[in-house]
Amino acid sequence: MAPITNARVLFKSYPEGYPIPGETTVYDTTQTIDLETVPLNGGFLVKTLVLSVDPYFRGRMRESKTSSYIGGFEIGAPLDGFGIGVVLRSENSKVAVGKHVYGPKTLHQEYTVYPELGHAAIIEKHPDLPWTVYVGALGMPGQTAFVGWKEYSDAKPGQVAFVTTGAGGVGAIVVQLAKAAGLKVISSAGSDEKVEFMKSIGADVPFNYKTTDTRAVLEKEGPIDVYWDNVGGEILDAAIEFAAQNGRLIECGSISGYNTGQTPIKNISMVVGKCLHMHGFLVWPLLPKYYEEFYATMPGKIASGEFKYVEEVTKGLDKVGDVILAVQNGTSKAKAVVVVAEE
Amino acid sequence: MAPITNARVLFKSYPEGYPIPGETTVYDTTQTIDLETVPLNGGFLVKTLVLSVDPYFRGRMRESKTSSYIGGFEIGAPLDGFGIGVVLRSENSKVAVGKHVYGPKTLHQEYTVYPELGHAAIIEKHPDLPWTVYVGALGMPGQTAFVGWKEYSDAKPGQVAFVTTGAGGVGAIVVQLAKAAGLKVISSAGSDEKVEFMKSIGADVPFNYKTTDTRAVLEKEGPIDVYWDNVGGEILDAAIEFAAQNGRLIECGSISGYNTGQTPIKNISMVVGKCLHMHGFLVWPLLPKYYEEFYATMPGKIASGEFKYVEEVTKGLDKVGDVILAVQNGTSKAKAVVVVAEE
Repeated sequence: MAPITNARVLFKSYPEGYPIPGETTVYDTTQTIDLETVPLNGGFLVKTLVLSVDPYFRGRMRESKTSSYIGGFEIGAPLDGFGIGVVLRSENSKVAVGKHVYGPKTLHQEYTVYPELGHAAIIEKHPDLPWTVYVGALGMPGQTAFVGWKEYSDAKPGQVAFVTTGAGGVGAIVVQLAKAAGLKVISSAGSDEKVEFMKSIGADVPFNYKTTDTRAVLEKEGPIDVYWDNVGGEILDAAIEFAAQNGRLIECGSISGYNTGQTPIKNISMVVGKCLHMHGFLVWPLLPKYYEEFYATMPGKIASGEFKYVEEVTKGLDKVGDVILAVQNGTSKAKAVVVVAEE
Repeated sequence: MAPITNARVLFKSYPEGYPIPGETTVYDTTQTIDLETVPLNGGFLVKTLVLSVDPYFRGRMRESKTSSYIGGFEIGAPLDGFGIGVVLRSENSKVAVGKHVYGPKTLHQEYTVYPELGHAAIIEKHPDLPWTVYVGALGMPGQTAFVGWKEYSDAKPGQVAFVTTGAGGVGAIVVQLAKAAGLKVISSAGSDEKVEFMKSIGADVPFNYKTTDTRAVLEKEGPIDVYWDNVGGEILDAAIEFAAQNGRLIECGSISGYNTGQTPIKNISMVVGKCLHMHGFLVWPLLPKYYEEFYATMPGKIASGEFKYVEEVTKGLDKVGDVILAVQNGTSKAKAVVVVAEE
């Protein structure tokens, strides 16, 4: 079989503000691969099926001298992120042909030879669910919601939660975990369509932060016992202002500042008198503690419809740059997934 | 016995910036009291011996519509705070004449009839110690250090602590608790004299934040596993910047902003990637948990010299206004105590 094109999405330059398709990242078709003869050297060849595009990508678009919790993208190299692929060939006894690999460092290219599994895992799919959900509600975003909520919410029935980006990959699961725990849930997002979705998954007070004043909502509906922060900035400040005594602030992200700089927080001194607890966290260190519980419970809840999810699926590796931008500027409509190929 | 003067310190007006003696507070000698005939109505008459002047006073000098964790001072009424007095007369069977009362709402006046003990307690003094230390290292400040450190430091030998106001009533005890727990201790204060004191109580890296760049010290001596915050503002920002992964930020106060407004915090978004835990706390909710341990261990350690303390004792109720200002602007040399009368 002759070599075929192995399209890739390369990281081209550090963005100043928002990542621009064609400038920050570039779709490249110059590389070829011979699927039958490419040397595996003990590894395995994967055909990429789905790729996850997430808010944290922006943090990886900085020069690596800027310290971050995760390595930066390398100029000239393919992007990488969560993804799922099917094994075409293998010289690794743990990785059988036809199995599916879910990996945190899946390259943004059509075909890849991986030398070893590393942090990736072989996963099985629930027959009623698509692969896409395994990088969303059943992947890193869902796991992030699950472990952060379980570890830090200290939630009690009747308390009040405020969840930002409540229609997003993480936030929508948090909304549903909070409702399942018996809390009143206030949740924010940036479009009326997202407000409708938040309503459909049980949020008691869903609102569009672009057209409704967050402080007014919190003043009326609070005080807040559990704040789930995906945004930072002024909304974090409002959450602190209207936090209940002994409130918990779960810090998952601060996308309001990823592209335009973080807005300084004015109300931090209130944490003393209110006895607030702020927990920054990453999913990795906590995942081992909750891994079995997550996979034992959540796929069934998602498949049965007890927990709902919504995703925005874009077809084509060439669209990755557009999807990255949409995730950063909030025009994405839901958890963003790129389908690279069907099986 | 004829009525005698019962001098008081009255709260006169809300300060704009720093509290000005004679404007914010006024020493008043217009009231008299007849110690033999003043009606007790079931209560008890106390002669005030020592009064504690603390940073939190500034927070009580706001109009009460500004919510705070503790009631504001009332215009025209005497100040109140932690203090110790001796019982002169009593109609309360739990409060014997000659006993000493330690109370959180001791009025700033020479003699007071209290209707009931309320949150006050009868305390005994270690024979080798003065009463003054019972409003300092063995009073609320020492308790604040003790309960905050025990509850939130999660300290392990070999880790690094950074303690602000390390020569103050709270900070000096935190420095010594951190050393006793086997940590390397960086500590800051605002004069070379305080730096010498911090050195004498075991701080490994004591420095004067007015003449030494905090960020440079932390960059060299960090990263910080436990940050004890009494100051807020830029130093809190620096502590976050140089915090270690999984660091704990214990928020006890933010005196840098009490009089001039809080400086917004720029680095809060770093709590996510570093997995930092910020705990705001007040001593009251935690004190019951540690009360017995505190009084069982700390008086002996203080009396034996195992734990050191320094206090700045000022004689005379008429000096309260000056002492309040010195505590707020940092010109006080150590934990501030006013001796109102000898027994």
